[in-house]
Amino acid sequence: MKIKINENFNNLSKNYLFSEINIRVKKYIENNPDKNIIRLGIGDVTLPLPKIVVDAIKKAADEMANQKTFRGYPPEYGYEFLKDSVRNYYGRKNIKINNEDIFISDGAKSDLGNIVDIFADNEIYIPNPVYPVYLDSNVMSGRNINYIEGNKENNFLPMPNGLDNNPKIIYLCSPNNPTGSLYNYDELKKWVDYAIKTESLIIYDNAYEAFIDGKYPHSIFEIEGAKTCAIEVSSLSKMAGFTGVRCGFTIIPTQLKSGDTKINDLWKRRQATKFNGVSYPVQRAAEAALSIDGEKECLKNINYYKNNAKLLADFFKSKGIYYTGGNNSPYIWLKCKEGYNSWEFFDYILNNASIVTTPGSGFGVFGEGYLRITAFNTLENTKLAIERLNKIL
Amino acid sequence: MKIKINENFNNLSKNYLFSEINIRVKKYIENNPDKNIIRLGIGDVTLPLPKIVVDAIKKAADEMANQKTFRGYPPEYGYEFLKDSVRNYYGRKNIKINNEDIFISDGAKSDLGNIVDIFADNEIYIPNPVYPVYLDSNVMSGRNINYIEGNKENNFLPMPNGLDNNPKIIYLCSPNNPTGSLYNYDELKKWVDYAIKTESLIIYDNAYEAFIDGKYPHSIFEIEGAKTCAIEVSSLSKMAGFTGVRCGFTIIPTQLKSGDTKINDLWKRRQATKFNGVSYPVQRAAEAALSIDGEKECLKNINYYKNNAKLLADFFKSKGIYYTGGNNSPYIWLKCKEGYNSWEFFDYILNNASIVTTPGSGFGVFGEGYLRITAFNTLENTKLAIERLNKIL
Repeated sequence: MKIKINENFNNLSKNYLFSEINIRVKKYIENNPDKNIIRLGIGDVTLPLPKIVVDAIKKAADEMANQKTFRGYPPEYGYEFLKDSVRNYYGRKNIKINNEDIFISDGAKSDLGNIVDIFADNEIYIPNPVYPVYLDSNVMSGRNINYIEGNKENNFLPMPNGLDNNPKIIYLCSPNNPTGSLYNYDELKKWVDYAIKTESLIIYDNAYEAFIDGKYPHSIFEIEGAKTCAIEVSSLSKMAGFTGVRCGFTIIPTQLKSGDTKINDLWKRRQATKFNGVSYPVQRAAEAALSIDGEKECLKNINYYKNNAKLLADFFKSKGIYYTGGNNSPYIWLKCKEGYNSWEFFDYILNNASIVTTPGSGFGVFGEGYLRITAFNTLENTKLAIERLNKIL
Repeated sequence: MKIKINENFNNLSKNYLFSEINIRVKKYIENNPDKNIIRLGIGDVTLPLPKIVVDAIKKAADEMANQKTFRGYPPEYGYEFLKDSVRNYYGRKNIKINNEDIFISDGAKSDLGNIVDIFADNEIYIPNPVYPVYLDSNVMSGRNINYIEGNKENNFLPMPNGLDNNPKIIYLCSPNNPTGSLYNYDELKKWVDYAIKTESLIIYDNAYEAFIDGKYPHSIFEIEGAKTCAIEVSSLSKMAGFTGVRCGFTIIPTQLKSGDTKINDLWKRRQATKFNGVSYPVQRAAEAALSIDGEKECLKNINYYKNNAKLLADFFKSKGIYYTGGNNSPYIWLKCKEGYNSWEFFDYILNNASIVTTPGSGFGVFGEGYLRITAFNTLENTKLAIERLNKIL
């Protein structure tokens, strides 16, 4: 064919992070078939769904088997029953949003990736290290991308000081993947104030919100003025263990405007054209997870992971190794041993402790010299990993 | 904010088709509260899911409740078990595809809308009248769009004769929504030959395949050479009543290349960046629907709708009214009464027979003067509608 392809795809970095990890782990297993591998690399939940959620899926499935209760095409922006649940979930944290601000999605990644559709060629500012979707989706659109550097000096919490005053699209992720760092009220207010002053937009990835304790903001909309400068993208993936169920929600306040255009209207049109809504049983599952009883059950799982994270963090602290995260986050971002880069330290831990981690350089150039370790394993394996690490660090 | 928005959105037509229908129907009901409305307007299934499908959802939900069988992130392109089912479904129609060609989606609309991401600025050719997503997704990308006119002369099956020899992206939908027309082997071969000769790409919307009888192609890949010039987008929405469950599949043969670039590779990268796979219980439901037993159950529903379509078509034939579809399709595309445009004829039928249809002009300028009538109602209502129409046509 002589069809013109999107040449911006050629500018995507060939990120072989997880396939390279798999190759190295496979080789290690072949050479060490008797070793018991502990996987602290992957950012995926492992605990089963709460019963209340499973029951909701099954009840919805039964409704679909009956002509009287069968449901066809869902509303493109989500059923009102689920928007009510999202609104109430925010309400319990004293954050007021309206149903019209809420868009139900099949996960945060879809909305974070697809949101580029509604914008033209703006300056893009992306933290580094960070979740790679912000970067790749903007590279695919040929955007001019600038990094906001996270480092030891700012505790991997870059701030707007030093940025120019031009309008820009700024991605923030708090608690951050991979560093586990999160903004407090004062810091997030500085970002919101900066966005308002410069007429910029913040795209706020809130996927790890459920890990936050009370003293940090659970939503950017806790900050005054944020409804005129921010979109918040959330997910049930980590909050309710929905990585395999697939449901999220994005908040675009009707107040958010560029000139006279409501961003909410643009997204409505985008979704009505390129999306057909989320599976009915999945929306019922999400409704159950976001209910008061559901949230309690989900928090049991969250607390299990948080306990693992705390054990790991306490251990690294006792060793005097610099890290971020481990609190309000399932991730620990660990400084590599002196003289080791990310991949070398990854190999060192794999070869000497049979533990799989994730090299920090896979999350951006400023992740070099660090490793990501996750709390998504069993308590037993987490304890065993600490024992092993204690011998080699 | 001073963020630049995608100005192409301003070029989208304000299509108020279904909201305008709702307004007129609501008004009619207010003025005629005692009338029994029959809805033959909407393109959505109404029969419940087969038991085999519902059981699959419930079994998958139970697996998610158990630590040993819990599943996290699904593969971005679909589980191999479901790709196997899709491959076997094609295989039973003697069409050979490979698992690597298959991408599991949350529905045809998502993939038809998002496919624009991987292409640059090509000439776009779209049938008219047709499903509005091809047009709107390309308008959003600022593409130059040409219409391929469907009309009474070509039985709403436009052919490539008359088109220039430049490479282009061509959308085809067969059986067509809204006209119910479908290409036979010879006609589809002419399109494939034209695409090969001009180094063009055909994006083939196959969402209504399950309504096709044996003597028409069930896939563009039945035509020799199609794997070098076509993408096929399919859905379980109509085949298995999945409009509320949300699952589809897109076939991008690894042979399909532009220059040296495999289109399959581009779509892989697009989906890995902006999509996180389909819900596990939904994939199990789709596997069940595509199994031999599942297909049999689904066909019972299809045949129920097809019988409704046949009754309507036979009636219009007996009246000597020109129509297309009604066979191999749930849609009948009916010529309006002499002197009536689409909306006038819509009103005529609503006011005189209490039947809701869809004005053809809502599917493009060349749909003016026609109505779409669907078979997605009960047999009883379909018969009653025919009785009423018999009195006024």
